[in-house]
Amino acid sequence: MKIVSGLKPLRKGEKLAVLMPGMGAVATTAIAGVHAVRKKLAQPVGSLTQLGHFLDDGHNHGRLIKDVLPLASFDDLVFGGWDPIPDDVYAAACRARVLNRDHLEPLKAELEAIKPMPAVFDTEWVRRLDGPNVKKGSLREKAEALQADIRGFMEKHRCARGVMVWTGSTEVYAEIGPAHASLEAFEAALDRNDPTIAPSMVYAYAAMKTGLPFMNGAPNLSQDTPALRELAEREGIVTGGKDFKTGQTLMKTTIAPMLHARLLGLDGWFSTNILGNRDGEVLDDAASFKTKEVSKLSVLDSILSPKQHPELYGDIDHKVTIHYYPPRGDNKEGWDAIDLYGWLGYPMQIKVNFQCRDSILAAPLAVDLAILADLAQRAGEKGPQEWLSFFFKSPVTAAGNGAVHDLFQQQTNLFAKLREYADAAAQAAKQAAVG
Amino acid sequence: MKIVSGLKPLRKGEKLAVLMPGMGAVATTAIAGVHAVRKKLAQPVGSLTQLGHFLDDGHNHGRLIKDVLPLASFDDLVFGGWDPIPDDVYAAACRARVLNRDHLEPLKAELEAIKPMPAVFDTEWVRRLDGPNVKKGSLREKAEALQADIRGFMEKHRCARGVMVWTGSTEVYAEIGPAHASLEAFEAALDRNDPTIAPSMVYAYAAMKTGLPFMNGAPNLSQDTPALRELAEREGIVTGGKDFKTGQTLMKTTIAPMLHARLLGLDGWFSTNILGNRDGEVLDDAASFKTKEVSKLSVLDSILSPKQHPELYGDIDHKVTIHYYPPRGDNKEGWDAIDLYGWLGYPMQIKVNFQCRDSILAAPLAVDLAILADLAQRAGEKGPQEWLSFFFKSPVTAAGNGAVHDLFQQQTNLFAKLREYADAAAQAAKQAAVG
Amino acid sequence: MKIVSGLKPLRKGEKLAVLMPGMGAVATTAIAGVHAVRKKLAQPVGSLTQLGHFLDDGHNHGRLIKDVLPLASFDDLVFGGWDPIPDDVYAAACRARVLNRDHLEPLKAELEAIKPMPAVFDTEWVRRLDGPNVKKGSLREKAEALQADIRGFMEKHRCARGVMVWTGSTEVYAEIGPAHASLEAFEAALDRNDPTIAPSMVYAYAAMKTGLPFMNGAPNLSQDTPALRELAEREGIVTGGKDFKTGQTLMKTTIAPMLHARLLGLDGWFSTNILGNRDGEVLDDAASFKTKEVSKLSVLDSILSPKQHPELYGDIDHKVTIHYYPPRGDNKEGWDAIDLYGWLGYPMQIKVNFQCRDSILAAPLAVDLAILADLAQRAGEKGPQEWLSFFFKSPVTAAGNGAVHDLFQQQTNLFAKLREYADAAAQAAKQAAVG
Amino acid sequence: MKIVSGLKPLRKGEKLAVLMPGMGAVATTAIAGVHAVRKKLAQPVGSLTQLGHFLDDGHNHGRLIKDVLPLASFDDLVFGGWDPIPDDVYAAACRARVLNRDHLEPLKAELEAIKPMPAVFDTEWVRRLDGPNVKKGSLREKAEALQADIRGFMEKHRCARGVMVWTGSTEVYAEIGPAHASLEAFEAALDRNDPTIAPSMVYAYAAMKTGLPFMNGAPNLSQDTPALRELAEREGIVTGGKDFKTGQTLMKTTIAPMLHARLLGLDGWFSTNILGNRDGEVLDDAASFKTKEVSKLSVLDSILSPKQHPELYGDIDHKVTIHYYPPRGDNKEGWDAIDLYGWLGYPMQIKVNFQCRDSILAAPLAVDLAILADLAQRAGEKGPQEWLSFFFKSPVTAAGNGAVHDLFQQQTNLFAKLREYADAAAQAAKQAAVG
Repeated sequence: MKIVSGLKPLRKGEKLAVLMPGMGAVATTAIAGVHAVRKKLAQPVGSLTQLGHFLDDGHNHGRLIKDVLPLASFDDLVFGGWDPIPDDVYAAACRARVLNRDHLEPLKAELEAIKPMPAVFDTEWVRRLDGPNVKKGSLREKAEALQADIRGFMEKHRCARGVMVWTGSTEVYAEIGPAHASLEAFEAALDRNDPTIAPSMVYAYAAMKTGLPFMNGAPNLSQDTPALRELAEREGIVTGGKDFKTGQTLMKTTIAPMLHARLLGLDGWFSTNILGNRDGEVLDDAASFKTKEVSKLSVLDSILSPKQHPELYGDIDHKVTIHYYPPRGDNKEGWDAIDLYGWLGYPMQIKVNFQCRDSILAAPLAVDLAILADLAQRAGEKGPQEWLSFFFKSPVTAAGNGAVHDLFQQQTNLFAKLREYADAAAQAAKQAAVG
Repeated sequence: MKIVSGLKPLRKGEKLAVLMPGMGAVATTAIAGVHAVRKKLAQPVGSLTQLGHFLDDGHNHGRLIKDVLPLASFDDLVFGGWDPIPDDVYAAACRARVLNRDHLEPLKAELEAIKPMPAVFDTEWVRRLDGPNVKKGSLREKAEALQADIRGFMEKHRCARGVMVWTGSTEVYAEIGPAHASLEAFEAALDRNDPTIAPSMVYAYAAMKTGLPFMNGAPNLSQDTPALRELAEREGIVTGGKDFKTGQTLMKTTIAPMLHARLLGLDGWFSTNILGNRDGEVLDDAASFKTKEVSKLSVLDSILSPKQHPELYGDIDHKVTIHYYPPRGDNKEGWDAIDLYGWLGYPMQIKVNFQCRDSILAAPLAVDLAILADLAQRAGEKGPQEWLSFFFKSPVTAAGNGAVHDLFQQQTNLFAKLREYADAAAQAAKQAAVG
Repeated sequence: MKIVSGLKPLRKGEKLAVLMPGMGAVATTAIAGVHAVRKKLAQPVGSLTQLGHFLDDGHNHGRLIKDVLPLASFDDLVFGGWDPIPDDVYAAACRARVLNRDHLEPLKAELEAIKPMPAVFDTEWVRRLDGPNVKKGSLREKAEALQADIRGFMEKHRCARGVMVWTGSTEVYAEIGPAHASLEAFEAALDRNDPTIAPSMVYAYAAMKTGLPFMNGAPNLSQDTPALRELAEREGIVTGGKDFKTGQTLMKTTIAPMLHARLLGLDGWFSTNILGNRDGEVLDDAASFKTKEVSKLSVLDSILSPKQHPELYGDIDHKVTIHYYPPRGDNKEGWDAIDLYGWLGYPMQIKVNFQCRDSILAAPLAVDLAILADLAQRAGEKGPQEWLSFFFKSPVTAAGNGAVHDLFQQQTNLFAKLREYADAAAQAAKQAAVG
Repeated sequence: MKIVSGLKPLRKGEKLAVLMPGMGAVATTAIAGVHAVRKKLAQPVGSLTQLGHFLDDGHNHGRLIKDVLPLASFDDLVFGGWDPIPDDVYAAACRARVLNRDHLEPLKAELEAIKPMPAVFDTEWVRRLDGPNVKKGSLREKAEALQADIRGFMEKHRCARGVMVWTGSTEVYAEIGPAHASLEAFEAALDRNDPTIAPSMVYAYAAMKTGLPFMNGAPNLSQDTPALRELAEREGIVTGGKDFKTGQTLMKTTIAPMLHARLLGLDGWFSTNILGNRDGEVLDDAASFKTKEVSKLSVLDSILSPKQHPELYGDIDHKVTIHYYPPRGDNKEGWDAIDLYGWLGYPMQIKVNFQCRDSILAAPLAVDLAILADLAQRAGEKGPQEWLSFFFKSPVTAAGNGAVHDLFQQQTNLFAKLREYADAAAQAAKQAAVG
């Protein structure tokens, strides 16, 4: 990565539009949470930008990240988005059943005021959902309507900048095809309504065309195609993805580094998930699950280096399953059976039962990514931001780079970058003082 | 830590005496394992010195640690030790029931040849054990007998160097008293048979007096007193401790860093252990358990920084219990109930059931510590080796330093030091070539 | 057991006083629940008297128990009790944090109206609690004050009959001594304020002296002494106990019968409990825990018949521990590690993690026992009611009888008795019709 | 069930042929175990016929079942069978990796002597297996070859009687079709090689035609068709099935009766299984899994009576999954998440992790069923033996009867029948004495 330069201080009071395609459990939990924190009703637990400190031994050691870096504050954020179901954020949050009434009631007015714009949506890509609040017309027309939505929103809310964070469902599994091979091919495909163009790609395209960074909280291809990489490069747009790292994968990328650090062997890792929310329903469709499975299976190889350690990691049975189980609601539950071995090959087992809350873990990631993507965009970065891998199950890298999945290596990389920004910010402040 | 200098290459074929007070499950598993690996009957799984690679991006990246550093090899190790029970290592290993007959039979001759020397032992300090193979006389006489044992062993086996690794039981809880305040006070206490001098302190004293590094695999005070720090400093002796990091604490120092990295809050952490080996029997004595408990409870505060994050970690109920449960044998089993919370304070739970094997996890640590302590001693280090914290539940530091418990930070520190040694070794090789 | 006779139909509208020493989590949950069910705000889940059906193949098959037997209905119950803390039931229920505000608010008026009478309480017997709402004077005076309380309550609330259910804390462990050997000795001990007379014994005495059945929801000796058995026999008083069968023991007496039915062997059973309510705090005192431990440990022998099956059950390591762990609140959590073996002795393991709610499981038992004890009393029974073993961890039997712990055998015995009552009720109805 | 009559005492030394289609893990574990018990090398743990006692209060109370009833003894059993893989029982047992070498070595000679006869096998019905040791020809010819095998085996080994126990794999899911509608249709289908006739049906047909009871350890239709019911009725053949009750279903039919006894509500029950043996491989085929799934899903409704308790059991999410996971080998592992609720509807959870051994649990059932089926056949019974439901996941009943799944109700029914046999045996002995 290039050294950061030219990071300018924020102007006091400038607003940042945070636009979310898919205003379900994650988006509404994120939005309600930001409002609750603003009103001092709750703590932004899980948010690195709000609670994190510099950890290194440099001169920022122990200072809050948000006190050192010129980040958009919670007060600066203006939320909007799109959804096929027309419920406002208050109604959608009640339906999602993540947050208690005690938390939602005091925010009712603010949340009711946020209504989803008509979505680009196609049941061919997300088979278990549907709704009336959708755009009509060709893909080209939809892409243009989204751009108009974005511009209109920013104007209406007087936002200086914006960022798009995909908080929608997992789309059906797809591989890169001719329509994704170049920007030219992609735009031609928009014109001919090509069925291999997923809605999430249209959102990513619209974001980039209007100058907004695009952060992808689902495992969909979305921005991760040659066509849209080309667009990001050309337009100087920051991107990040894919798939918020929550629950089971968070634990997996925590425990696997321990095995590797201690040179303990691994025979197999069986992971099962039960969840009862909209996400669970969508993933009950095998075609959407495949997208997720590919995202979830990749992590072990990257962390364990089987080529370097064939005697330890050369033959791992790694299996991931997800089951829709309504009694769980949004409280996803994971069960992992890990078969490891030690000295002379003697077998041991670790079982992990994680009773987590999917949206509670994802919401601060969505907010942090909006704030950090804005920082990177303002610093003149473009394309995949590898230092944001910390937040993703399936990190996208620049061409030729291997993805880092080890949570602690991701953390190290993240902080290395934050230090660069801190230096750049200090320098900018100095120049401003001199100037 | 000072920069390493003067690390001289090993002379081919020089032997390293590895002397272990307490030849029970851990020691016999370690010894049998080294012999099995020598005979290519098994892999040294879990051993950093044998299977670990340099991880950094420098010129050693991806090379085996043992190919880069001048470490004593498994072929160079000569094992001996002391135990109140006079069984040879083969008999003791059979009794310990850690390794299968299939692994032990081919090693029978080698293991039978290793017989424990009479131990310094006192049932006041380890109440649940006893045996006839013990030294008589005053503490002073015992300390001298140990030194004679060490010198005799090294002469008999033509060892160029030696190292002592405490693999004995956990002693009764004790705090630092007048007899430990200075070397002078300690030696006077030896003379008057002071009951506050624990057997493990006598071993540490004897090791240092004969020039051997002392590594402490149990949570006993042992070398961790002003008196013996003074001796280590004066004699230039490397020390390390305390308490091999295995099982539950290994998992705890893996998962807690994830909570901290993700700024997830913690309400409580309940840990229970069931184990049926000699260690379990000893820890069933409340006085020994207290020593262990103190060792196990300290880790969370260090990792989570409650002062920096009172809203996340300011009020944690942390409870650790150990139960002697014979059906488990050496297969210690841990159950952890972790009560965390996320965004806006919503609670989640992680349950970890670790069906581990205590001695299988500890044995490679004992061997690695012997080899790395020898490296440090040859490099002219002395006193507590903080970079070895990676191997310990309760790392001892130089005065004024806080202990690091985070497994991944410990790993980073360990590798930083290994890089120093690699540089020193390269320089030494270059000088040798020039000279 | 003798054949039931003379069971007379209830008179419409007669009230039954349900008096509870100890108005904490269990009592307030029971009382609030009965009120909620009366108002049709909730279902009496877990209550055999309200939801259970006759299971046999006789002519009552499939009929609701409460439609067949002349039981006091929820509408007939009038609740009262004693507690050292003077909070009314609404305040105490809020403090106990078992039931949600949503459930408690609509019952506020009814619950606030129930205020505990001053308790017979002694911190020597329950060391972790205290409160100002206590009776003064000698034990004899306290016993008489309780009787006056009972008579006053029944008069004030126009109750035709009453029953006492101990829902208080577990007292310090005690064994039967001279003061409990006969009624005469007991009354003399009351007079001289003998410290071996526990408060729960005074309650049991007062209940019997005023004609009330005494049901014991804790493992205390209470009514289970020669002295009070003599009184129960003389006064014709129904008794039942000890210790509501909830949580871990409920599971244990479910799973152990399977092992026995299938002739699977058992090496060990390790049970740990974490809970954070008042009960957990009391049991954190070793002296109270011992009372509980004795109650919990007895169950396996009775179910598994080790004498009949020494090869399967002759050498079981059975261990039970309880830990006070505040994050859990009233949601007790149990973890059981069960080491069984099958064909040719091959080992297997069952782990059970029960995330239960102590008071939610106990409340319907308290209510059912009140209703069924009243039934038995009206039928002219006296002394220990073995058929109520189904509800107890540590069933009290008539002299010479072994306790039955197997849940399903308890269920069989319970229904056998209910059928007797059904027959008696049918006969009584017939006689009434004839007469 | 009719009252047993005419049960004649066994003649000393008469042999019973136990013929098993499918000589994999279950069959070889059963055979090796019987030989080990004969040699007093191991205990027949898990076997009701060998270790069970009469439980009732009658005059047989506490006596061993095998001392009261005229059962074939382990010494009387002669094992044989069929398998597409030609390995002898010793080789197959080694391959199955259920029993240790320590157990198998002393039995080598006996086990090597038992070689499987060529099997009726079709990869259309079990897709993941294959082998060369198969019969050729039409279904009719195969059926006749099996009958010849049976007669030849019994003659060669001088067996007075025989019984067939299906220990083969789960076949592809099938429903009853025209070919199974009557015996006539079935025999015509044999003649025309009808593809809806499964191999297990041919075995059941051959067994009945030669007078052998047929016990079905898998969930296949096999004997459970109108055609073969007709044959069993006509020939007076005892039948039993389906699917040995082991592991997860054993636990489920243990815990669900507790919920029902205590009137606790149920929201959902999620069951997952991981196993790595041949059975796991076969069930990884969706078509075979469906057969198993139907067998496993039926149990809850029968135990919980949702029609009687719509408020408790009217809307249960019950999900069962099985995953092939090689690291587990024959040690099947189950994880159950049970979502129950109590008083006023408050939710609780039970998690069960059963680390079982599939063949270790199934082997004694196979042996017990052989011995008990022989008893019933000698007593003149015919058709489905409902009293054997205790051993089956999916009990077959006579037309019109509902299956009983509650383990304890099954146990009650089993013992009721055993008492009948005891009475009949006593009477027969008396008559013999008189005669």
